[in-house]
Amino acid sequence: MSDTTPASTYARTERTTPTRYRDRATWEREAIHAILDSAYVCHLGFIADGAPVVLPTIYARVGDRLYVHGSTGSRPMRGAGAASGLAVCVTVTLVDGLVLTKSAFNHSVNFRSVVAHGTAYQVTDPEELAVALDALVDHAVPGRSGDVRRANAKELAATAVVRLELDEVSAKTRADGADDDDADLDLPYWAGVVPVTTVHGTPEPHGSTTVPLPAYLTDLHGGR
Amino acid sequence: MSDTTPASTYARTERTTPTRYRDRATWEREAIHAILDSAYVCHLGFIADGAPVVLPTIYARVGDRLYVHGSTGSRPMRGAGAASGLAVCVTVTLVDGLVLTKSAFNHSVNFRSVVAHGTAYQVTDPEELAVALDALVDHAVPGRSGDVRRANAKELAATAVVRLELDEVSAKTRADGADDDDADLDLPYWAGVVPVTTVHGTPEPHGSTTVPLPAYLTDLHGGR
Repeated sequence: MSDTTPASTYARTERTTPTRYRDRATWEREAIHAILDSAYVCHLGFIADGAPVVLPTIYARVGDRLYVHGSTGSRPMRGAGAASGLAVCVTVTLVDGLVLTKSAFNHSVNFRSVVAHGTAYQVTDPEELAVALDALVDHAVPGRSGDVRRANAKELAATAVVRLELDEVSAKTRADGADDDDADLDLPYWAGVVPVTTVHGTPEPHGSTTVPLPAYLTDLHGGR
Repeated sequence: MSDTTPASTYARTERTTPTRYRDRATWEREAIHAILDSAYVCHLGFIADGAPVVLPTIYARVGDRLYVHGSTGSRPMRGAGAASGLAVCVTVTLVDGLVLTKSAFNHSVNFRSVVAHGTAYQVTDPEELAVALDALVDHAVPGRSGDVRRANAKELAATAVVRLELDEVSAKTRADGADDDDADLDLPYWAGVVPVTTVHGTPEPHGSTTVPLPAYLTDLHGGR
């Protein structure tokens, strides 16, 4: 393996090692990337005036880097603009099923989640900002960035994006059936899994739209 | 109005007043409760060893109180067990649509989110814990807590739940169409909204299940 080939797993640290259900955790790069590429919003955690703050926002992955969208002038952006950056935790979660067991205690949720810790820095280089903005647009709708008016200099200057290197990151997954204690198995209650899926409805064109539905939206509509 | 009638809005504070898009914010109790009752997982933010941590977990609302599930022995639970409690931020987000505009810059997401700030305390009273566990089970599947074996004393002792009073809380919502600048309206790109919905699949019974599908699961399957 050459020096430039990334390792197939991220390094484990104390805070990316869960205290419970360690068998649900993984540090595998591919598994983590797949989860990050499947959700629409992340939850960005940071500290403001000594207290935790968690805000939902859009994001995109480019290689081993996350770009997280913010508002210019907002608290996380001001912090990430400092040379020392901003300590953040970025979490992405997908719910795949409700797991019903015969005992209330063993109820669970099937899910996929990624938690990334690190220091976020504001993206200020116009070229990197343009790459990040394309990635943000393509994250939700792959192929879209090639079929829009791209941001001009004024818009890029008004776009606030932070960069977080994926380094201290782990995923956690549950994808199993109901798991009752043996003593409960004969109880007369329904046990099993109710699948939960995110689907796309029929695209609703704006009145100004004069072109047919692009292929990348047909695929999206029929896809995930 | 009597003294015991709750106000119809939560009090606004500096940190529940967004720095941008204030017209998307609301402090109305009913609107906030409706969003909290519609999602499956929340993102719990807290500070551990001086750094922000955001973990996904299940939760339930009982009146003006949130119950958030944790693991006994996990970091947030240990902190919330202290007399002074644990400073937290609990955020719930639902994605309703992808908003595509002719300019990359004006792309957006239709969403509903709630951000609650406060101090969380571990629930230790067995009666309150039993109420919280019922609420957690009923949150995802309304009616379920009456059709399971309820937790026994040993299970209650192994259940870690924190309580957060809804006090400093706000919601933010976008539910609009594409909003392009006038100068971009004639560009030959598709603009509009792709609706995003969460749906339930056909319930998959565990091999131990001998009863028919309960009505509360039929409703869920056909419902939201």
